[in-house]
Amino acid sequence: MKLKKVDLSFQSCNSEYKEAKVVIFSSPMDATCSFRPGTRFAGNAIRVDSFGVEWYSPYQDLDLKDYKTCDIGDLDLPIGHVEHSLKLIEETTAKILADGKKPMMIGGEHLCSLAPVKALIKKYPDLRIIHFDAHTDLRDEFFGRKLSHATVLRRIYDLVGDDKIWQFGIRSGDKSEWNWAEKEKHTHLHRYDLETLDECLEKIKDYPVYFTLDLDVLDPAYFPGTGTPEPGGVTFKELLAAILKLKKLKNFVGADMMELSPQYDTSGASTAAACKALREIVLLLHQERGHE
Amino acid sequence: MKLKKVDLSFQSCNSEYKEAKVVIFSSPMDATCSFRPGTRFAGNAIRVDSFGVEWYSPYQDLDLKDYKTCDIGDLDLPIGHVEHSLKLIEETTAKILADGKKPMMIGGEHLCSLAPVKALIKKYPDLRIIHFDAHTDLRDEFFGRKLSHATVLRRIYDLVGDDKIWQFGIRSGDKSEWNWAEKEKHTHLHRYDLETLDECLEKIKDYPVYFTLDLDVLDPAYFPGTGTPEPGGVTFKELLAAILKLKKLKNFVGADMMELSPQYDTSGASTAAACKALREIVLLLHQERGHE
Amino acid sequence: MKLKKVDLSFQSCNSEYKEAKVVIFSSPMDATCSFRPGTRFAGNAIRVDSFGVEWYSPYQDLDLKDYKTCDIGDLDLPIGHVEHSLKLIEETTAKILADGKKPMMIGGEHLCSLAPVKALIKKYPDLRIIHFDAHTDLRDEFFGRKLSHATVLRRIYDLVGDDKIWQFGIRSGDKSEWNWAEKEKHTHLHRYDLETLDECLEKIKDYPVYFTLDLDVLDPAYFPGTGTPEPGGVTFKELLAAILKLKKLKNFVGADMMELSPQYDTSGASTAAACKALREIVLLLHQERGHE
Amino acid sequence: MKLKKVDLSFQSCNSEYKEAKVVIFSSPMDATCSFRPGTRFAGNAIRVDSFGVEWYSPYQDLDLKDYKTCDIGDLDLPIGHVEHSLKLIEETTAKILADGKKPMMIGGEHLCSLAPVKALIKKYPDLRIIHFDAHTDLRDEFFGRKLSHATVLRRIYDLVGDDKIWQFGIRSGDKSEWNWAEKEKHTHLHRYDLETLDECLEKIKDYPVYFTLDLDVLDPAYFPGTGTPEPGGVTFKELLAAILKLKKLKNFVGADMMELSPQYDTSGASTAAACKALREIVLLLHQERGHE
Amino acid sequence: MKLKKVDLSFQSCNSEYKEAKVVIFSSPMDATCSFRPGTRFAGNAIRVDSFGVEWYSPYQDLDLKDYKTCDIGDLDLPIGHVEHSLKLIEETTAKILADGKKPMMIGGEHLCSLAPVKALIKKYPDLRIIHFDAHTDLRDEFFGRKLSHATVLRRIYDLVGDDKIWQFGIRSGDKSEWNWAEKEKHTHLHRYDLETLDECLEKIKDYPVYFTLDLDVLDPAYFPGTGTPEPGGVTFKELLAAILKLKKLKNFVGADMMELSPQYDTSGASTAAACKALREIVLLLHQERGHE
Amino acid sequence: MKLKKVDLSFQSCNSEYKEAKVVIFSSPMDATCSFRPGTRFAGNAIRVDSFGVEWYSPYQDLDLKDYKTCDIGDLDLPIGHVEHSLKLIEETTAKILADGKKPMMIGGEHLCSLAPVKALIKKYPDLRIIHFDAHTDLRDEFFGRKLSHATVLRRIYDLVGDDKIWQFGIRSGDKSEWNWAEKEKHTHLHRYDLETLDECLEKIKDYPVYFTLDLDVLDPAYFPGTGTPEPGGVTFKELLAAILKLKKLKNFVGADMMELSPQYDTSGASTAAACKALREIVLLLHQERGHE
Repeated sequence: MKLKKVDLSFQSCNSEYKEAKVVIFSSPMDATCSFRPGTRFAGNAIRVDSFGVEWYSPYQDLDLKDYKTCDIGDLDLPIGHVEHSLKLIEETTAKILADGKKPMMIGGEHLCSLAPVKALIKKYPDLRIIHFDAHTDLRDEFFGRKLSHATVLRRIYDLVGDDKIWQFGIRSGDKSEWNWAEKEKHTHLHRYDLETLDECLEKIKDYPVYFTLDLDVLDPAYFPGTGTPEPGGVTFKELLAAILKLKKLKNFVGADMMELSPQYDTSGASTAAACKALREIVLLLHQERGHE
Repeated sequence: MKLKKVDLSFQSCNSEYKEAKVVIFSSPMDATCSFRPGTRFAGNAIRVDSFGVEWYSPYQDLDLKDYKTCDIGDLDLPIGHVEHSLKLIEETTAKILADGKKPMMIGGEHLCSLAPVKALIKKYPDLRIIHFDAHTDLRDEFFGRKLSHATVLRRIYDLVGDDKIWQFGIRSGDKSEWNWAEKEKHTHLHRYDLETLDECLEKIKDYPVYFTLDLDVLDPAYFPGTGTPEPGGVTFKELLAAILKLKKLKNFVGADMMELSPQYDTSGASTAAACKALREIVLLLHQERGHE
Repeated sequence: MKLKKVDLSFQSCNSEYKEAKVVIFSSPMDATCSFRPGTRFAGNAIRVDSFGVEWYSPYQDLDLKDYKTCDIGDLDLPIGHVEHSLKLIEETTAKILADGKKPMMIGGEHLCSLAPVKALIKKYPDLRIIHFDAHTDLRDEFFGRKLSHATVLRRIYDLVGDDKIWQFGIRSGDKSEWNWAEKEKHTHLHRYDLETLDECLEKIKDYPVYFTLDLDVLDPAYFPGTGTPEPGGVTFKELLAAILKLKKLKNFVGADMMELSPQYDTSGASTAAACKALREIVLLLHQERGHE
Repeated sequence: MKLKKVDLSFQSCNSEYKEAKVVIFSSPMDATCSFRPGTRFAGNAIRVDSFGVEWYSPYQDLDLKDYKTCDIGDLDLPIGHVEHSLKLIEETTAKILADGKKPMMIGGEHLCSLAPVKALIKKYPDLRIIHFDAHTDLRDEFFGRKLSHATVLRRIYDLVGDDKIWQFGIRSGDKSEWNWAEKEKHTHLHRYDLETLDECLEKIKDYPVYFTLDLDVLDPAYFPGTGTPEPGGVTFKELLAAILKLKKLKNFVGADMMELSPQYDTSGASTAAACKALREIVLLLHQERGHE
Repeated sequence: MKLKKVDLSFQSCNSEYKEAKVVIFSSPMDATCSFRPGTRFAGNAIRVDSFGVEWYSPYQDLDLKDYKTCDIGDLDLPIGHVEHSLKLIEETTAKILADGKKPMMIGGEHLCSLAPVKALIKKYPDLRIIHFDAHTDLRDEFFGRKLSHATVLRRIYDLVGDDKIWQFGIRSGDKSEWNWAEKEKHTHLHRYDLETLDECLEKIKDYPVYFTLDLDVLDPAYFPGTGTPEPGGVTFKELLAAILKLKKLKNFVGADMMELSPQYDTSGASTAAACKALREIVLLLHQERGHE
Repeated sequence: MKLKKVDLSFQSCNSEYKEAKVVIFSSPMDATCSFRPGTRFAGNAIRVDSFGVEWYSPYQDLDLKDYKTCDIGDLDLPIGHVEHSLKLIEETTAKILADGKKPMMIGGEHLCSLAPVKALIKKYPDLRIIHFDAHTDLRDEFFGRKLSHATVLRRIYDLVGDDKIWQFGIRSGDKSEWNWAEKEKHTHLHRYDLETLDECLEKIKDYPVYFTLDLDVLDPAYFPGTGTPEPGGVTFKELLAAILKLKKLKNFVGADMMELSPQYDTSGASTAAACKALREIVLLLHQERGHE
């Protein structure tokens, strides 16, 4: 008989913070979404529905229950305070890093990803970014704002600089963003699919790498539950295959998974996709170097 | 900075079990539903959405955060094992009672209510039952089963006997059930609304009372999120007024709130109604005797 | 063991045509809806969900299974052919009448009601019409058409003439319609609710009466599943009470129930309301004269 | 044949700005919502669905098409910039007032209401506020912010001062808010329903009055399409009756209607309610003084 | 004019039982679902929506209306009685077989498939099973139960033994299930897709074969309407191509199609997929040997 | 500050009619749909949601805002009057052509496509038709009607004759339709996918070409928001690639995009797909000859 406070951790990720190697947290912020907000509810939707997903990955032949993971839930972010929220996410990430653990963030809007990168770059100055997304997210400003879901990779660029960001699956953006990325070559932008990931991994596998996954890289057929559906994306099988390739990384230092918006996920299929992707990424974060 | 395991307790009901006076648990069972199942998800839906409800009740001028309540979450029920599940619920309730606390169960299908009554009747042999529902639930068997959501009040009757059960809001049932209740007078059945509750309370206020609330007593306009919508029910205001009258009880020993089925609650309004009703009932359970 | 063709009749209305006293049929036509179509699916939605409704009415203390009712299902209407469809409905009704049975039509759009009235007026030249609706439906033409859901009561008026139509619950219409009804007094139009029904019944109870129920007379809170939701309507309890008053009719010759649009009924509550209203009306049609 | 740019004005409100007496605009901002965002889509949802609502009000015996109303659509608000957005709304309202017209704002979140009041108070220093809402909205700050949907009436209070704000229908709030309003008497707060509106109107009918309508004053049965459903509210009929009483105002200077969130309005019934309320309010704004 | 009882048979499958070669029935049972129940409604959802699907298959150049198929509808299963329900399904199948017809079952949860296999194995002792699914379904027990949707293939294995079951599309299961199938080789388990079906058919084409299709073998993009969505599945084209290969079977003795859950199929696309798959399988069952 | 009437044109297509090269209009007609109506709402759904789509196409490296496009909105069609509606669409198209502009129609049901072809054939007697669809649409009559969504290509054939119509993606139809197309070779019918489009374009690129796109050519996974979902269709990437091939046309004289039914598009993904396809087609229409 269980007579303890309710535990709605993601799947079997119910270790205490102290003993965990990977720490899951969610960032319930969607203030700068230009189209349809709602991603703030993603964390708990994933927790509740994770009951429907097996702990064992046949793809990696690994089981979540064999690893120490702590899920600390939604951060207490001040609604509407973008700068303050980002600061809190950054501090949480910094603390997790300082405690020798790896951060796994669930979004929330993509802008949140700026905060973990800020924390990570201090510890790993030669950090590389792998970015899966439908959108360039490279505007310098959006509706007059420097901090927006549409500028987040540009802000990350401000931190890491040229030649550090590898973008995949991109199929939407303002013309100026494409030019900035493709003509001026500030980032490595691969259009429409994930096919050149192997080349990327070959080049950066020895560096510390942060993986930022905007789930709308998936075609809306596979992931309708998002604020800005952009047809023409990858299939779940393609995404899964790409994620599994991250095993080649020798220093996979953190990750996030963003932009699930449960209210547009009427069947629960998008939440299931997020759960499954999260299981695989957490398992990868638990692996120590050298799987090639 | 919060670095503890996720806490998705209902609202502010996050005391530890040991110090709590009222213990919330949910019973994720819906095996015998004859129409549309889904109530097993009610507990966590209520927990997640309780963020949208204030802790303070203007109706009672009381605040949930001033009381010690522990929410122990979903019980681990063996799916499809009706007898075994009921046994586990009964044992949990018995333990809560033995520890000097009051049980507050979230359903799950209405059959679950049999289990707390079994535990309570041992402690309180002269237990009375107040039952709000759209349905009689008085069949002696249903599809050949003794244990069914359609027989639950009959099974409770088997435990408590004549003149102990007060039913309100009833508007659907087999002819034989109406006869059994109204002609043979085994229960006090009040049709269609909650208007004679005062008389009932006057008669039973000094006895130990268990309150079993099937939320489908509400009209589907006010509560569409349920498996067996039965038009012609009460409004939320009428339900709320009736619940507040339970203050007159001098020995309110436990309660349940059943039959929210979140998948039919497309707007979230039914879950909000359940959250608000739960807040009021928990506050009532915390009051010690004598509010008349 | 049942080894016969599937039977999806409404509830227990599964008598053969020959032996039935009341014949249910549905008219899957929604061609002239000006706002949101979809009522063509109402008949089968009601059939499938009628499993969730009891056969016994506590309001009338009568049981559907004690009466001979045949449900012949959707008529085969030529989609988009308004005139031809109306002719087929009229012929079906005429045949049912010729066979000494009473017709109970499930809509479909309200225009369908013209067809049974055409058949009935031949048998009952002094037919009266009781009409529950949110909308006047009294335009002489709509988007240039004489036959439209917005003109149906005007077309019925063309058949029955002044002083024969009693309208209740009306709360929407073009100014000219209100004038035609209220100032020119071609119909008895009672605004907003059903409160003067008793007076009406007193006056027409000895005449043959057809009851045409546009379910959108209900407030959208109680009946969201319709194409033209019009806030400010009656509650289900008010509708039910009014329907039960029809017992006073000594010659209740037929009825219809229109405008359920299942695709807007995301919770199933509107379909449940239609099922329950249908049960009560069918029971009333089975009663022979004289219940006052 | 129409060969002009698409016109999706609300109903028949398609006058040019210059000739209009009342100007409708919508404020697509929902940045500070603490629970479920989405109200930014309300304006266009109302425009598109207004096709389903008649132009004629039987309640007022007035027809929208007899009045000059211009609908200028969504303001171009910088997403996430709360202060800047409020400034733009204020400037727009000020310009409308300067041009001798009356403003009718469609929300957006309730915080937007602060902006028209700022513009109006300059023109009408003795402005009174009539506020219909489920929530007190009187916090002095919320999650550390002064500008929030939960503080908007407190900010309005900062502008208008004691004894100027009349609140109705309130049924949710932090204990401190209730105390501030009811014990310290900074506002006139009427709990749960709209019943004392007549007294209020008697007292303020000669003053300039702004009416701010948070549609969640309606019970979620009548209005599920909102971010923070709060059961126990008024019916649509009650709201409509109260709105019609505003005819008594001799100086009705502007109004807003807030918090429709179309994504939770799966049946369209909430949008229909908003359309109908808007029709009545616009007609009232067009009436010049003196209808008592 | 049709004046017979309503006929809601699947498409044109409206032959009388006596003359039919293939008999469709549905098993409305979902008691052991561990995640989201609802499959009990699949049969009638398919019947009602089959109106939207052509009778002619361009893939097979065959027309359903040229074959004698009887649809006997939902079996009357005692809700919640798993053992009794399975017995009734088995008896129905046995009777169909005894009458020289082929059974085609619509689920319902996957556990139902055990019953037809029990009936078939008596007639065809060397029966082979082709199993399409996302899940292994090979647990020996689940939540302490031997009979569960998660154990159904293991129970079928108990009947047919080693080397008889061919599984395709599998992508989820407990580690022990994978080991039991792949390492201990009790079944032929093909991971993730349907690609080795040809080899399988080559080996078993001369044996009597039962085909059990859990529709969640489809990716949730193609089939969101199911209780346990498991991303990473096959496309509908891949499923269709695989089904058509079953023409090679010389003794195709029966089939089922399980786990459609209409309440998660908000667009109707999953039900349409089920209708189309059913059309193709029924046509295959009607073909006598020899299409290779 | 914008003080002009609301402008809800598709994306940046807000030129005045006079200066536009391409004219968008929508045809809100769905009277002959045999299964699920609702396409009449497509035009405005696309307009409202086009806010979520970028103006720039990375596929064509072109930007909508660099071209003059006028969106004249929904035509005022008489609801239910099929012949009259078609006449109005034809006249509008004829006027657009006479004014030297290109028509781009948004459906509405597919039958609407007959009207622009009637107008175009007068100007371009050797017009060719490229038709993407799930359905043959080649019946000579349907439910007794010559004018139906199921006969539209047959009626277009009556205008253009043999060897002029190229159909792609077709996967559903009555056997007689397949024979008429494939055996009698009245049209070029390519089954199931878009793969032989290159051959077609090679043959007809010098002729004037009208492109009629029934969006249900997409698999329902990619486009659930339609009245007659037909599994087994193409992916959005395949559709997009095919559309881009139309650059080879030297005389692309007009296009339509039909059968979006927003009420079945619960996530908005289908509307997003329509928006994106429309952007690409409009950009192609703006290109003058010679891109091969």
